[in-house]
Amino acid sequence: MTSAALELFDKHAASLRAAGLACRERSYFTLFPETPDRHRGGAAASAAGIAAFHAQLGRAFELDQPGALDRIGGEISPYTLEPLGIDYPRADIDDLFAAARSAMPAWAAATQQARLGVCMEIVDRLYENVFETAQAVMHTAGQSGPMSYAGSGTNALDRGVEALAYAQAAMSDVPAAALWERRFGSTTIRLRKRYQLVPRGVAVCFACATFPTWNAYPAMLASLATGNPVIVKPHPTAVLPMALAVRTFREVIAGAGFPPNLVTLCVDTVEAPIGKLLVKHPQTAIVDFTGSARFGSWVEANAYPALCYSETSGVNTVVVESVDQLEPVIRSLATTMSLFSAQMCTSPQNIYVPRDGIRHAGGRIGADEFGAQLAQAMGSIAADPQRAAPIMAAIQAASTPALIDQMADAGSRRGRVLLASSPYAHPEFAHARTRTPLLVGIEAGARDLYGEERFGPIGFVITTDDRNAALAEAAADARAGGGITAFLYSTDEPYTERAIAAYSAAGAQLTCNLTGPMPLNFAAAYSDYHVTGLNPAGNATLTDLAFVASRFRITQSRAPAT
Amino acid sequence: MTSAALELFDKHAASLRAAGLACRERSYFTLFPETPDRHRGGAAASAAGIAAFHAQLGRAFELDQPGALDRIGGEISPYTLEPLGIDYPRADIDDLFAAARSAMPAWAAATQQARLGVCMEIVDRLYENVFETAQAVMHTAGQSGPMSYAGSGTNALDRGVEALAYAQAAMSDVPAAALWERRFGSTTIRLRKRYQLVPRGVAVCFACATFPTWNAYPAMLASLATGNPVIVKPHPTAVLPMALAVRTFREVIAGAGFPPNLVTLCVDTVEAPIGKLLVKHPQTAIVDFTGSARFGSWVEANAYPALCYSETSGVNTVVVESVDQLEPVIRSLATTMSLFSAQMCTSPQNIYVPRDGIRHAGGRIGADEFGAQLAQAMGSIAADPQRAAPIMAAIQAASTPALIDQMADAGSRRGRVLLASSPYAHPEFAHARTRTPLLVGIEAGARDLYGEERFGPIGFVITTDDRNAALAEAAADARAGGGITAFLYSTDEPYTERAIAAYSAAGAQLTCNLTGPMPLNFAAAYSDYHVTGLNPAGNATLTDLAFVASRFRITQSRAPAT
Repeated sequence: MTSAALELFDKHAASLRAAGLACRERSYFTLFPETPDRHRGGAAASAAGIAAFHAQLGRAFELDQPGALDRIGGEISPYTLEPLGIDYPRADIDDLFAAARSAMPAWAAATQQARLGVCMEIVDRLYENVFETAQAVMHTAGQSGPMSYAGSGTNALDRGVEALAYAQAAMSDVPAAALWERRFGSTTIRLRKRYQLVPRGVAVCFACATFPTWNAYPAMLASLATGNPVIVKPHPTAVLPMALAVRTFREVIAGAGFPPNLVTLCVDTVEAPIGKLLVKHPQTAIVDFTGSARFGSWVEANAYPALCYSETSGVNTVVVESVDQLEPVIRSLATTMSLFSAQMCTSPQNIYVPRDGIRHAGGRIGADEFGAQLAQAMGSIAADPQRAAPIMAAIQAASTPALIDQMADAGSRRGRVLLASSPYAHPEFAHARTRTPLLVGIEAGARDLYGEERFGPIGFVITTDDRNAALAEAAADARAGGGITAFLYSTDEPYTERAIAAYSAAGAQLTCNLTGPMPLNFAAAYSDYHVTGLNPAGNATLTDLAFVASRFRITQSRAPAT
Repeated sequence: MTSAALELFDKHAASLRAAGLACRERSYFTLFPETPDRHRGGAAASAAGIAAFHAQLGRAFELDQPGALDRIGGEISPYTLEPLGIDYPRADIDDLFAAARSAMPAWAAATQQARLGVCMEIVDRLYENVFETAQAVMHTAGQSGPMSYAGSGTNALDRGVEALAYAQAAMSDVPAAALWERRFGSTTIRLRKRYQLVPRGVAVCFACATFPTWNAYPAMLASLATGNPVIVKPHPTAVLPMALAVRTFREVIAGAGFPPNLVTLCVDTVEAPIGKLLVKHPQTAIVDFTGSARFGSWVEANAYPALCYSETSGVNTVVVESVDQLEPVIRSLATTMSLFSAQMCTSPQNIYVPRDGIRHAGGRIGADEFGAQLAQAMGSIAADPQRAAPIMAAIQAASTPALIDQMADAGSRRGRVLLASSPYAHPEFAHARTRTPLLVGIEAGARDLYGEERFGPIGFVITTDDRNAALAEAAADARAGGGITAFLYSTDEPYTERAIAAYSAAGAQLTCNLTGPMPLNFAAAYSDYHVTGLNPAGNATLTDLAFVASRFRITQSRAPAT
């Protein structure tokens, strides 16, 4: 049992050590080649993954876990608008908790090296199966092929390894034993002390609909490495990516000689959600939540006595004050605001522009003209389906088009629609649910429109009185609405320093003057801290020591040394 | 400003480094000589401290902090039963929060080295004033002179330094900057990233009545080092030790050029408690609580959105299964159960003995006989005032004698009073509130009597069916009632290993087969983890990374490297 797990630790120790070093330096690191063509399995792996996905369609998902009551499933591909036709075992909640609790002692008794070894092997196996997962993400979340591979595959796995590196750092901070010696009066007391890491208990991990693996992998691995079983609650519209993950976790765990019920899947339906039952279950010790701000704030307020780690929303802001060259800025903003139809928690939504315009090398461009140029750049992406498809991909939620229309209506009444949204013809999937981005120009103050996350391809160009108002209002909106990312374009150093301070206080990560091929909102594992916990966007950071240090506790015994 | 603080860091860097090393090794360490006679100030310091305390009696406590509404104070010395006659400024709560918030930016902007330097200097100054603090603890908490010096003085300060060492470890885990470089297509993107530690916000620190400094120092220093202002809410019967601490904190902070309102005192009365207002104040970001289980469980459940670190109670258990020599065991138990009249969260309360008795080198001693011998040993301490006084000290709360009587009454009806409690004549303070320990013999099952903390010199010898029942019931009671410490006497190795596992699961720290001059419940800073968070005794550990890692957050900015 444990020897198999320790072999896995030896196998992955160098990778984990390198990941830990990257975390401390926050420098570039990855365990994986960045493009699918360099996957170790070659083209065969890609073909096999795609074939496995297609073979799964229309069939029962095989998952041998306890407590099955019946089978449910209702996923619909955003690309085909056809049901996937996959059903999953619906489990009795109490049975899942009982299974998790009975699996826990053997896992808790394993060494941290054994647990880390198994977790790293899980990551390795998930990478092996990444093509199948990417297909599953595409056809549930609506991501493009490249994003589902890199963002939901390798980058999500790197964030998982990052969480493992922090778990290792926190656990190894506690020695296994100590010899303690002190004089009391004329007598020397020598005590041998033993310290033991004890897991908290059952963790519940909620995965979201649009980017399920990216937050779930780190949460699951952080809980598991520190000894806690995990019950995974996927969003009912995006079950398959997490079902595949759960199956892989279980296989690797069982292969290492531990009880597979350390990780189970708990599915529900949109009509009969069970999230609150899971959060309030008396055996729930940890909740990791990614999802809507509304339910997320309920989870945060009601998780006690369980620990809660959350990411809920992103009212992400951009301030454009001054630039050298306008065109690359417009291009980067247009691309990033179109990326995955802005269905990322890091997608910029609100662009604040001073009324008197933006200084650039050639003079000054007015706020209206800026909005027009941005709309044109976004429109030109949207107008070319071959270019649009890999950028914009598909719309995950059936309700998003109605929200776009509602915002367009409000925008036209209270401001101006700079770019109208409409379906675009996806070149590969004729029935794909697609919408090009909506861009609304509006005066500062209409916070009822732009002060909260409007999930989907919805953006606002907000005219403010001057550059100071632009910064003040953007940072205030990020603080109040929950900004994860923020973006600044300014050639003015003192202004930039003020912006860095303002966004630090607002709790949003700031990217300054970035142009070029990197998506503005790209979050690098091991380097970019994701979510600060300082505003309503969530309370947990990927990844810091706080994300892992409370997932286990320390017990101790001591006795005279003889 | 900052240069003064950085000089303080340099001054104390070696001490802090040594403390950090001790924390990682969990070996013996202290910054302070263990006995008052070796204090660096010599006999003069002791005399000056005592004089300062006496000069304070009957006077207004000078504390120049904002928001004073009027002055209140009602402390009574457990040694003299006379009012101390000291009044303190009662502050408007909103004013204190506003002052804390406005003090915060300058402190948050300081480097972690500057903050750590100031905090270490505070510790140093508290040590300088330790004799005055010890007097204050004696005449509010009722501790003996030696305990008020070592336990509430140097040991509490060591726990504070331990918290600082962990704060340093957690903060230094985050680099100040990174250079990140990655190829996107044919372009290399190079980003300079800056990371900033951002404090959570205003911390409220509740100090308890019997051991105020021991938990408050680490909590205050952990919050302060990580950038958070602290409002200290002392128990209304033990204000002076914390008032002295707050004044020292403020003086050192101001001396280093920072706003003294980073630390303020918020007093209330037993009749009009303000604890709930502080916990639910919209500006409260962190709550550290030490106090009763009843209010503590309210704080834990209601602190959200503030973080909560708690220590509430200790149902501490002893299992006596087998011994080599009985006499040293009896002696250690008798002394430790008498120590500070069992008014410590670590004092043993329940002793579980198998009905068929305890094996020892000379044969077997029955449960009844064991109870009788323990009662005799405790009684012999109590019978000699010269011996009793430094061990038992005084009774802090006026309500404790009534609780003792109530337990004696219940014990005599449902079991047997093995040792009756009565006042003893303190040799120095004729009017001291004293009570010798009550020891009740009772059958297992009377959990309504012994299943919760009975604060004060109240112990139970509980007869169980056999040795397995003794262990099972003791561990279960620790788990349910909230055990901090636990004690085992057994010469049987497999039984001992079972006990280590059972108490680990119960979340109580286990001390095995300890005899001799060290109090059984002595908790060594840097070495013994205090409170596990795995049972109702509290959720916070002194000290692990989890105690500090969430007290700050991380913000980030990034820009192309040029």
